[in-house]
Amino acid sequence: MDIGFIGLGGMGHAMAENILKAGHQVRVWNRTRERAEPLAAFGATIVDEPAGAFSGDAVLSMLADDAAAREVFDAALLEHAPRDLVHVNLATVSVALAETLAHEHAVRGIHYVAAPVMGRPDVAAAGKLTVIAAGSAEAIDRVQPIFDVIGQKTWRIGSLPQHANVVKLAANFTLAAAVETMGEASALLAGHGVAMADFLDVITSSVFPGPVYSGYGRMIAEGRYEPAMFKARLGLKDVRLALAAADACSTPLPVASVVRDSLLEAMAHGDGDKDFAVLGKVAARRAGRE
Amino acid sequence: MDIGFIGLGGMGHAMAENILKAGHQVRVWNRTRERAEPLAAFGATIVDEPAGAFSGDAVLSMLADDAAAREVFDAALLEHAPRDLVHVNLATVSVALAETLAHEHAVRGIHYVAAPVMGRPDVAAAGKLTVIAAGSAEAIDRVQPIFDVIGQKTWRIGSLPQHANVVKLAANFTLAAAVETMGEASALLAGHGVAMADFLDVITSSVFPGPVYSGYGRMIAEGRYEPAMFKARLGLKDVRLALAAADACSTPLPVASVVRDSLLEAMAHGDGDKDFAVLGKVAARRAGRE
Amino acid sequence: MDIGFIGLGGMGHAMAENILKAGHQVRVWNRTRERAEPLAAFGATIVDEPAGAFSGDAVLSMLADDAAAREVFDAALLEHAPRDLVHVNLATVSVALAETLAHEHAVRGIHYVAAPVMGRPDVAAAGKLTVIAAGSAEAIDRVQPIFDVIGQKTWRIGSLPQHANVVKLAANFTLAAAVETMGEASALLAGHGVAMADFLDVITSSVFPGPVYSGYGRMIAEGRYEPAMFKARLGLKDVRLALAAADACSTPLPVASVVRDSLLEAMAHGDGDKDFAVLGKVAARRAGRE
Amino acid sequence: MDIGFIGLGGMGHAMAENILKAGHQVRVWNRTRERAEPLAAFGATIVDEPAGAFSGDAVLSMLADDAAAREVFDAALLEHAPRDLVHVNLATVSVALAETLAHEHAVRGIHYVAAPVMGRPDVAAAGKLTVIAAGSAEAIDRVQPIFDVIGQKTWRIGSLPQHANVVKLAANFTLAAAVETMGEASALLAGHGVAMADFLDVITSSVFPGPVYSGYGRMIAEGRYEPAMFKARLGLKDVRLALAAADACSTPLPVASVVRDSLLEAMAHGDGDKDFAVLGKVAARRAGRE
Repeated sequence: MDIGFIGLGGMGHAMAENILKAGHQVRVWNRTRERAEPLAAFGATIVDEPAGAFSGDAVLSMLADDAAAREVFDAALLEHAPRDLVHVNLATVSVALAETLAHEHAVRGIHYVAAPVMGRPDVAAAGKLTVIAAGSAEAIDRVQPIFDVIGQKTWRIGSLPQHANVVKLAANFTLAAAVETMGEASALLAGHGVAMADFLDVITSSVFPGPVYSGYGRMIAEGRYEPAMFKARLGLKDVRLALAAADACSTPLPVASVVRDSLLEAMAHGDGDKDFAVLGKVAARRAGRE
Repeated sequence: MDIGFIGLGGMGHAMAENILKAGHQVRVWNRTRERAEPLAAFGATIVDEPAGAFSGDAVLSMLADDAAAREVFDAALLEHAPRDLVHVNLATVSVALAETLAHEHAVRGIHYVAAPVMGRPDVAAAGKLTVIAAGSAEAIDRVQPIFDVIGQKTWRIGSLPQHANVVKLAANFTLAAAVETMGEASALLAGHGVAMADFLDVITSSVFPGPVYSGYGRMIAEGRYEPAMFKARLGLKDVRLALAAADACSTPLPVASVVRDSLLEAMAHGDGDKDFAVLGKVAARRAGRE
Repeated sequence: MDIGFIGLGGMGHAMAENILKAGHQVRVWNRTRERAEPLAAFGATIVDEPAGAFSGDAVLSMLADDAAAREVFDAALLEHAPRDLVHVNLATVSVALAETLAHEHAVRGIHYVAAPVMGRPDVAAAGKLTVIAAGSAEAIDRVQPIFDVIGQKTWRIGSLPQHANVVKLAANFTLAAAVETMGEASALLAGHGVAMADFLDVITSSVFPGPVYSGYGRMIAEGRYEPAMFKARLGLKDVRLALAAADACSTPLPVASVVRDSLLEAMAHGDGDKDFAVLGKVAARRAGRE
Repeated sequence: MDIGFIGLGGMGHAMAENILKAGHQVRVWNRTRERAEPLAAFGATIVDEPAGAFSGDAVLSMLADDAAAREVFDAALLEHAPRDLVHVNLATVSVALAETLAHEHAVRGIHYVAAPVMGRPDVAAAGKLTVIAAGSAEAIDRVQPIFDVIGQKTWRIGSLPQHANVVKLAANFTLAAAVETMGEASALLAGHGVAMADFLDVITSSVFPGPVYSGYGRMIAEGRYEPAMFKARLGLKDVRLALAAADACSTPLPVASVVRDSLLEAMAHGDGDKDFAVLGKVAARRAGRE
């Protein structure tokens, strides 16, 4: 397939590389061109403007946040895009922006598919992401081969693109709540002189299997928050988006508010670039046992 | 082995039956004798006083809460207990009471093993509980054959009995936080018209496998809170104990406070005997979508 | 003085009328012209464009929110404004917008004074507002005669305009927290069969004098939330702004998060246009005693 | 009148002295006799057992907490007390204990009046306490002359003693929430470089007059938490009691939970004996600006 790819951060770069390796043609664009250049070795065509990527069979994008997306996907870009193009937005953006972009694409005859992905850069590099896709079934069908390259499983959430973003934000909120809970539990255990590792063994071998409790739990148990697999400041971004999505439908999310406060405390102490597990440090500080 | 068993609620009854079936002699006591009688068919000896059970190779107890334990394990009972008896308290009691009982037993030469179990009555009936044991290694060794009957795995947390209770309470707090999170997430999803079931499929197939998210999540998705596998009022009891244990070491547990408030709201609306998953109903009510 | 006035909602209308009655010339603009017409009877000149008001000795504005301010005070308006004009923004806007507007005015040689006011429409009508002003001392000096007309007291917070907004948001947060607290206290009292009115008598006669506890407390005691003196949805707007200002400096405000959740619950139950005191209804609902 | 007085901490001592100065006969008892001795100079009779004080026209008590009250007011003491004696409990005890004590007194024909007082030791010394009294009207009438000595105003809350305790706890919760709010507001202000003192001037001169905002606010503004007028650990005790009273009627008090967590954090950092205003330090720490 003839694919455009916009946004080559850690996640985007890994996905674009996998698409290239799978034999597709890929025109890549990134704000800073240097990030794009290593992909030339895999056959990518580097373009100088987003418009150069916004064509072909489909264009995929993985920009950092709402502001970046809003800036790149402007009226001019959409006006000049070929009709019937499929634009797959892989990023975690706000539900509100997803709604807006879906509308702005639709009125110009462009297909907008929201397909936020679950997984960190190492998972992206392995082509094992979980893809949460929503949009017209026909448009998703057309890009399914690409989803099969970057992910191990695609979940279809329906025809309204923003629904995929709601699911993604709910999932990230669930993750955030679990990490916060591990942090608080570790403070409780430490307060009574019990090793977090003993606790982790119990719960991850019984009712809480899976990578979240064992992975983040282990970092908390070891007090090891670098290198960051998933930065606290990115976790905060996602919690803010979940709260905004909940606010829009007048839904209280008290646990999300708690996590937000803990992440703000981490930011205030200069730990925004440490791993999300640094919530364990926040909980320990509150208990006077940092 | 010659075992005494005190407390024959849903959990205790299932455990005692399994111990009988495994060929051990069991003297059983329950406040209301009728609950004990069915066990006679399996060979149990029904005794009229706790003291009748408080002898032999070991005595196991599974009383409802701190108050019940405090009432039964009084000075008189401990005074007349044979020296070197092992008392295994399987119940989820407060850390403070565990410390007190450990001391009161020790000064009389009785071994106190805290061995709170994880799992609901159906798991107990299947002999698949997770046993979290702490106390003297020698005492635990002596009752390990019984643990192997009631559980599929015994975790040893060290020599201080109350440490097992801390681990149990931290585990139950983790469970409570996960259910609350599912409830809040379901309200967020509903607010945007997304099916909770779709969300559950995504997370339980990826980062949140295991029985908690799928089991409670499913009940929330279906709005089905009866019959209760684990009652909201028992969940509230455990969250209160976690908060008390955290208070004792000056440790804030903000997520536990949130869950406590949600469970109080469930109680206030007459849902204390519904399943713990009724937290989903609480979250939906707050969002005006009950 | 020759004054422009932009934005004639309940607050703006009352202030403009008082300025007219004090003998000043006032050119008024409002998005919907009908709101402006009653002021013609007091001598106001109604203009058709914001630019018609954005001149003279000073222009005052009282627009509903950030979006309205952002729309009206655009580049075109500022470009054509006379140099050295003083623009007094009386509205409660975000700290971020205040910073942006201050900058955009400054680069064009226009003075920007942030002067959010405390007090409801009845207080505005009485000319008894509390004015919280920040900006250049010279600019404030020039508009002080107008502040003396609309308010009973002007507090000067320094030379950075946004500081007045921070103070205003902190004050509104304090108000919101007090009303939430009254709501929760009333639920506690009701739960034990104690009359809220008895409680109010005690605290307002002793440690909590002043209009907030007695005013909102009385409405909660009577369960009377209409007519709204200060609508719940406006309170929510202010709490959101306080949280945003706190987020910008990585400061957790856990009580603000609690109030936000309660106000979202009020919105979800259709009570957004009821008085802020409706937080009492939210607390009662949670306790099953609505 | 012939008065017994039990419990001579800072508050009790001041009240007993005032009662003596007003010309009443007072038999005093304190666990540590030395605390009682200075009162002999004012004419007090020091007794060696609580029973020595538990007679006469009325006995007043001001013990530190539930545990102390429970220990002193035991069955033996009540059995030997003269029928028709009025016992006035001035302390802030739990609602549950008030109910229990009221019952235990009633069955023995002793009048139990709950009369928790508002005010710190300096206010007690000035005889300006606020007395919140509940119990039989006749019993309160009999001790009203004593209330008039220790307080400036007596509020009667009805015939059920525990209702006075509910009111007291609700008042202390309101106080705690206000101090927490001041702490959070100060962190927000500091985050934007605004002086807390400027903010305090505005609110205490307008919508938040009274001693709470100005007094605690001033301490927070100055970062001065010693000497303690009201210790953080005592504030925590009261918040715990409010939460327990709310729990008993299934009432969530989310703001109380927030304050509790903040006070636990203060305790964890060794600030339990500092003034309640130390909540400002907690909020500043979370924001990285301690």
